[in-house]
Amino acid sequence: MLKKLLFNAIFHFHAQPFSVRCNIVFLLLVTAAKLLYDFLTAHLKKLMSDEKCSAEKVTEMEDVITQMDNYTQQELADLFVKYNVKSPSTGNDLTPPTSFNLMFQTSIGPGGNMPGYLRPETAQGMFLNFKRLLEFNQGKLPFGAAQIGNSFRNEISPRSGLIRVREFTMAEIEHFVDPNEKVHPKFSNVADLEITLFSSKAQTSGQSAQIMRLGDAVEQGVINNSVLGYFIGRIYLYLIKVGLSKDKVRFRQHMDNEMAHYACDCWDAESKTSYGWIETVGCADRSCYDLSCHSRATKVPLVAEKPLKEPISFYLNVVQFEPNKGAIGMAYKKDAKLALEYLAVCDECYISDQEKLLSEKGEFSFETEGKTFTLTKDMVSVRRFQKSLHVQEIVPNVIEPSFGIGRIMYSIFEHSFHIRQGDEQRTYFSFPATVAPYKCSILPLSHNQEFVPFVHQLSEAMTRNGVSHKVDDSSGSIGRRYARSDEIGVAFGITVDFDTVNKTPHTATLRDRDSMRQIRAEVAELPEIVRDLANGTLMWAEVERKYPIFEGQETSRKE
Amino acid sequence: MLKKLLFNAIFHFHAQPFSVRCNIVFLLLVTAAKLLYDFLTAHLKKLMSDEKCSAEKVTEMEDVITQMDNYTQQELADLFVKYNVKSPSTGNDLTPPTSFNLMFQTSIGPGGNMPGYLRPETAQGMFLNFKRLLEFNQGKLPFGAAQIGNSFRNEISPRSGLIRVREFTMAEIEHFVDPNEKVHPKFSNVADLEITLFSSKAQTSGQSAQIMRLGDAVEQGVINNSVLGYFIGRIYLYLIKVGLSKDKVRFRQHMDNEMAHYACDCWDAESKTSYGWIETVGCADRSCYDLSCHSRATKVPLVAEKPLKEPISFYLNVVQFEPNKGAIGMAYKKDAKLALEYLAVCDECYISDQEKLLSEKGEFSFETEGKTFTLTKDMVSVRRFQKSLHVQEIVPNVIEPSFGIGRIMYSIFEHSFHIRQGDEQRTYFSFPATVAPYKCSILPLSHNQEFVPFVHQLSEAMTRNGVSHKVDDSSGSIGRRYARSDEIGVAFGITVDFDTVNKTPHTATLRDRDSMRQIRAEVAELPEIVRDLANGTLMWAEVERKYPIFEGQETSRKE
Repeated sequence: MLKKLLFNAIFHFHAQPFSVRCNIVFLLLVTAAKLLYDFLTAHLKKLMSDEKCSAEKVTEMEDVITQMDNYTQQELADLFVKYNVKSPSTGNDLTPPTSFNLMFQTSIGPGGNMPGYLRPETAQGMFLNFKRLLEFNQGKLPFGAAQIGNSFRNEISPRSGLIRVREFTMAEIEHFVDPNEKVHPKFSNVADLEITLFSSKAQTSGQSAQIMRLGDAVEQGVINNSVLGYFIGRIYLYLIKVGLSKDKVRFRQHMDNEMAHYACDCWDAESKTSYGWIETVGCADRSCYDLSCHSRATKVPLVAEKPLKEPISFYLNVVQFEPNKGAIGMAYKKDAKLALEYLAVCDECYISDQEKLLSEKGEFSFETEGKTFTLTKDMVSVRRFQKSLHVQEIVPNVIEPSFGIGRIMYSIFEHSFHIRQGDEQRTYFSFPATVAPYKCSILPLSHNQEFVPFVHQLSEAMTRNGVSHKVDDSSGSIGRRYARSDEIGVAFGITVDFDTVNKTPHTATLRDRDSMRQIRAEVAELPEIVRDLANGTLMWAEVERKYPIFEGQETSRKE
Repeated sequence: MLKKLLFNAIFHFHAQPFSVRCNIVFLLLVTAAKLLYDFLTAHLKKLMSDEKCSAEKVTEMEDVITQMDNYTQQELADLFVKYNVKSPSTGNDLTPPTSFNLMFQTSIGPGGNMPGYLRPETAQGMFLNFKRLLEFNQGKLPFGAAQIGNSFRNEISPRSGLIRVREFTMAEIEHFVDPNEKVHPKFSNVADLEITLFSSKAQTSGQSAQIMRLGDAVEQGVINNSVLGYFIGRIYLYLIKVGLSKDKVRFRQHMDNEMAHYACDCWDAESKTSYGWIETVGCADRSCYDLSCHSRATKVPLVAEKPLKEPISFYLNVVQFEPNKGAIGMAYKKDAKLALEYLAVCDECYISDQEKLLSEKGEFSFETEGKTFTLTKDMVSVRRFQKSLHVQEIVPNVIEPSFGIGRIMYSIFEHSFHIRQGDEQRTYFSFPATVAPYKCSILPLSHNQEFVPFVHQLSEAMTRNGVSHKVDDSSGSIGRRYARSDEIGVAFGITVDFDTVNKTPHTATLRDRDSMRQIRAEVAELPEIVRDLANGTLMWAEVERKYPIFEGQETSRKE
C-alpha cells in the first residue's frame, strides 16, 4: 500500500439503503498506482546512472523519486512525457494513466437497471450493526465482533497463486474501545512475546527490523497503545499456531505517507515467501473514523454511553460547527437546509479535521444526499465550549485486525514445505496437526485379510472422535506409503502389523510425521491419543515419554 | 422446482477457459415461470367457479391447468390474452412474459470488456477437478468431494428472510460411483431409519406422505438405489442433529415433469415452516450427465478405469456415432471438422438420447466451439458393436446432495423456538448444544467480589477447552439472567453461588436449558462436562445420573 487514494461511495451487494464505509482506502487502486510509480522510478534511476547525466539533473530526478507518492494523475502523466518514458516492449509512447473502477459492478433485478457492486471488504456489516452489537454487550465497551466472508476486487493483474486474486476470503475483527481507555486488560498475556517489528522510524532511517518484547514496544510508544499491541500479539500467536515460521514473520508499521489520515497506527503482519515479504494480516487502529462517517451519512448517532457508577453531572468540552445561516442560504438557496442538517451531526474528530482545512485553505467540501457543498470561512466557524451532561456519550474507537485467509494459507504451504535430509525425492509438509487436512493415516502392513478388522476398528473410532483420517490400503511398501502420506502433510500415521494381530493386548505403531519417530500403543487407545495430538492438548514429546519407542522399523519395512 | 428450463452456457466467476456444467436447470427461471403458472391457474379457477361458465369451457380450462408446466413462453403469452388476464391491482393489460438473465453479469479487468458471471451454484469446481480427485483416490471408485461457498442468483423477488435471497451459502457433495455398482456398503447403517417419504407416485395419486423404513423404500424401488438411499439417510440424520424436528422434515421425490431429463431420481429434503414446506436439501442421482457434458465440451475423457483384480480381456458393448462425412461436409463446409471431432467423443448416455431424437424428430442439434450444428438422419447414424478391451473405462455416475445453508438455519430457528409452559413472556431456542452459538453461560449470583475468581477460573478453563461461553455479570436476578440466556439459546448455564465460595471442594450448579433441571459439580470438573455435552459425547441424562440434582433453586432465586 502506498498512498491514500480515496473513493467516495461504498456499496454492498444487497444494495442496502445505507452501507457506507465512506472514503475507504482503495488498496487496489493504490497497487495499480504503485506499478506506475515503480515503473517511473526504474526509468529515472536508469537515466541517473548514465554518466552523461548532469549533477543538476540527478538532483532533480532524486526529488521526483522522493515525491513520487504525492503526484496526482495529471502530474504523473506529465512526468511520463517529460522524461520520455516509452513502452519497454515496443518502444511506443504510453497513453496517459487512467483510473478505473476497482469494484465489480452488476445489475440487480429483472429490469437490469438497479446497479449493485460486489463488496470489496467484509467489514461494513459490523459497522451497520453497531447499535445491535452494543446492545448485545449490554451497552458496555469494549466489545468485539468478527466476520469471515468473500470479497471481490477487480485486480488489474491477478497472479502469484493465492496472493493476488479477484475473489478472496477475508476475516475481520472490529474491536470497539473507549478512546480514553485504550488499555487491554489481557495485554500482560502477550507482553513477553518477542516479535520482529519493523517500525516506521526504522524504515525511514534505513535501519532493519528488530526483535522486541511486545511490552517494551508499547511502553516505548513504538506501538501506539496496548489494545493494538494485544491484537498484534494474538495475530502473531495465531500465525505461528497455524504453521508460519517465527523467523519468516514480521510486523511492519505503516509509514505516515501510506497510513490513512484517520488512523492512529497501523501494522501489517508480513510473511516472507518466494515472492518477498507479503502482507497477510493488517492491524489498524482506525480511531473513530468509521462510526463517525456512518453517523454523518445516516444522521444516526453511533455512540456508546459511558457506564458511570452513579449518574453524575459533569462538564464536557463540546466542539460544534457554528454555521452562518444567512451566508449558506445565499450560496445554496433551498439546499442550504441539507448543509445545516449535515453540520449539526458532525463529531469532534471530523470537525477538527475540517477546521484545519478552513484555516489552511479557507474552505472545505462535503457531500450529503447526493449534493456537494463547499463552505468557506464566512459560512461556518467552529465553536468550542463546555456543557453540563448527565451521561457521557462516546464515539468508540475501533481496532481492526483484517486477515487475508488465502495469503495465510499460501504462507503455510511455503513455510511448511521441507525435504528429508539426504533424500531430495522425499518432500513433506510439516502442517501443525491442528490445521493438517488429515490428522492421521491408517496403513495395514499388507493386503493380508487379518489386518482388515483392526483397520475398521481404528477408522470407526477416529470418525467417532472427529479425527479426519485416510486409510491407505493400496499396494506399495509401508515406507512408500508413509512417504506419500508425508507428501500431503498428514500429521500422524498408524501401522497395523502382524504384532497387532497376534499379540494381546492388540497394539499398533503411531508415527510422528516430522521426526519420523514411532511409539507402540494399544489399538483401543490410539484414536484418543491422535485426537488429543490433533487438538493440541497433547504433545508428541509427552507421547514418547508415556509409550514404548518403536525403533528403526520404518527403514527395515522399506522394501 | 417445476420444470426443465434449460440454459445453455454456464460460467464461472474466474472466467476459466472451461467451467461448464452444461444445461443446468435454472431453478430461478423456473420459479419465475411458476409465478406465472400460479397466477394463470388462479385466474382460470376463478372463471371456472362462475356459474355461467359452460361445462365445455370448464373442461377446456381444466386441460390448460393440467398442461400448465409444458407451455412455452409464447403459448403462455397467448393464453394470457385468450383468457383476458388483467393486472390484479390496476386492471390493465399485462405485457407478455419476458425472460431475463438469472445470473449476475459483471466486467473483469481494467478495460471492462471481459464479461464474467457470478456462479449460480458451487458444484462446477468438483467436476473440473474430477481427474485430480480420482487420482487422489488412487484411481478407485467410489469417492466423494464436498465444497461450501457462496452462490449468486438474480432472484426476481427476494423475500422471506433467509429463504429467498440473491447471495447464499451452498454446500454440495459430489459422490462418484460406478453405475454398475450402485450399492452403498454402509447403507445398513441407515436402513432402519423411519423417514417420512412423499413419493412421486403418492403426489400424483393424491395420497399423503408416509413414514417408511429406509431399507424398505430402497428394496421396494421407491428410492432408486442404496447409494441415493444412504445419502437420504445421512441428510436426515444431519438435519435432526442440527435441530430440525423429526415431524417437520420430509423427503419429497421429484415428479417426472420437474426432474431433469438426465436424472435417475431426485429427492428434496423439505422442512415445514410458517412459509409452508420449503426445500432445504436436494439429493439427486444425476447419472453420468455432468461428466459427460464436460467431456464433450473439453474433448477430454472424464472416466475411471474399472479396477480389475487381474488384467483380463473382455468384450464391451460399444455405442458410437457413425457420421456420414460427405453429407456433413456438404452441409457445414470447413466447420464439418468441428462436428466430427465432437461426435467422436460423445458417450453412451448422450448418444442414446440423441438417437431417440433422430428417430422421433429426424434430427438433433448441438453446439461446439461457439457454432451450432443440426444433424439429420442422413448425416449421422448410431452404431453398436462389441469390442475387446483390457481395461474397462467407466463414466461414473454422480449422487449430488446439495444443502441450502441459509434455509437450514432458518428452519432451525423456527423448529427450535419455544415458549415456556405457563409463561408467554419466556421464550427460548432449544438449539442442540453442538450448534448453539454459545454452549454455556457463567452467572455469578450477584456482584459480590468473592465470586469473581471462580468466574475467571471457569471462563479460562472453558476457553482452554474450546467451549464458547458468555459471562453475564450484569445486574438482574439469576432467574432473569437465565431467561435472557435461554432467549438466545445458550445450551447450559453455570451459577457461582455462596456454596461455591464457602464449601470445599468448591462446587457450582450446572443447568440444562431445555429441562431447566440442575446438578451440582466441582468447579474444576464443570468445563470438561460442558465440553463433552457440547461435543455430543455426553448426554444430559448421564450427567443427571452421575451428579447430585440441585432442586428447585431457580424459582427461589428469581427475585
